[in-house]
Amino acid sequence: MKSIDVCLSPELMHLYDVKDRTVVVVDILRATSCMVTAFAHGVESITPFSDLTACQSMKSKGYITSGERDGKKVDGFDRGNSPFEYMGEDIKEKKIAFTTTNGTQAIEKALGAKKIVIGSFLNLSSVVKYLLFGENSVLIICAGWKGKVNLEDTLFAGAIMEKLRNHIEADCDAPLIAQHLYNLAKDDMMKFLSNSSHVKRLNRLGIQKDIEFCLTPDQYSIVPVLDGTGKLTIK
Amino acid sequence: MKSIDVCLSPELMHLYDVKDRTVVVVDILRATSCMVTAFAHGVESITPFSDLTACQSMKSKGYITSGERDGKKVDGFDRGNSPFEYMGEDIKEKKIAFTTTNGTQAIEKALGAKKIVIGSFLNLSSVVKYLLFGENSVLIICAGWKGKVNLEDTLFAGAIMEKLRNHIEADCDAPLIAQHLYNLAKDDMMKFLSNSSHVKRLNRLGIQKDIEFCLTPDQYSIVPVLDGTGKLTIK
Repeated sequence: MKSIDVCLSPELMHLYDVKDRTVVVVDILRATSCMVTAFAHGVESITPFSDLTACQSMKSKGYITSGERDGKKVDGFDRGNSPFEYMGEDIKEKKIAFTTTNGTQAIEKALGAKKIVIGSFLNLSSVVKYLLFGENSVLIICAGWKGKVNLEDTLFAGAIMEKLRNHIEADCDAPLIAQHLYNLAKDDMMKFLSNSSHVKRLNRLGIQKDIEFCLTPDQYSIVPVLDGTGKLTIK
Repeated sequence: MKSIDVCLSPELMHLYDVKDRTVVVVDILRATSCMVTAFAHGVESITPFSDLTACQSMKSKGYITSGERDGKKVDGFDRGNSPFEYMGEDIKEKKIAFTTTNGTQAIEKALGAKKIVIGSFLNLSSVVKYLLFGENSVLIICAGWKGKVNLEDTLFAGAIMEKLRNHIEADCDAPLIAQHLYNLAKDDMMKFLSNSSHVKRLNRLGIQKDIEFCLTPDQYSIVPVLDGTGKLTIK
């Protein structure tokens, strides 16, 4: 039987052996939600960068640059970290260079995995199907907030665990922790998260609409996958 | 208002600034449960060692040596990691040198804190009172299992959080995660933990009686505190 584990913070990634696993990277608020939204609106590829300058330099090569630090769009970048910035006709067939506080760093820590895919509530069922029909064991890596564990990424890991519970076994306690939390939260995730430190931080930035959208399951039926050249596509 | 944070794994300790905090080290199964039991039965002091050889060398200085690795007593040590080994008359007024897989490493990572105390369900209410009447903010450090997050230490952190919820505010999401889990589990922690990887591992070692005991709140009214010379006492 395949197994599933959950890495609750990128700072714990050295404890996990990913070489035979499909790794799902999740940063619900808001990097991976943005990426999924962008692909659903016709973007050709997204190249993640952990370094801000390297990301910005891609503008001269015709890329749309997306940059976020501490929840805010970075000066000089074309787009920030709201999914609503990735819904226009103008991104169709474009390439994006993307850097965020936590999400792109998490992708970097997953390098070496058999496969790396992008998860969010927006494409939850598609990710579940991808994992169910794939042959690899699974590791979900939660981007967290500057290394610390956060609730919303943990809830996503729990949703995956809950939906795969009859098909895949938990390696460790972290998937069980996530699953319990998801089952507590699933009927009203917005309310459940209202005390979360990250949600409070983002509410101060006035992005309640983003948060509600990012917590809505199954808006899109796509699974972005990292290819051998370091870019995400949905082929 | 004082605040409380929870470090779910010793591998995340570099993210926390402990110098103004009281740190509670917890390794429910079974290091900190053993330490609390030993003090309740009259031990004079416990000196934690992360290194096995350094710990064993204390025997020549008249210490009782306690050593556990991977859940089992280490050959050549006087005692292992069952609380029932720390209940006899023969440990009264003795000094113990103690090393375990996770617990003593967690104590080492807490060095530099304003105060370091030892927590377990066995002395839960005493730890709560200590934190309530102390002036410092709090960090609970869960020993986990070889760096990975475990359920039972997280539940203890949640119990502290739940009992202090009207007096102290959460810094981050980890205390909220722990509190939710504790409220789910508190009516039957043994049942809640029955699927936990660590409990399964320990059940294979035939120590169900230890586990039940370690999950029983308020058996003892003491709080072991680390002094400036690196030993725990209850003065």
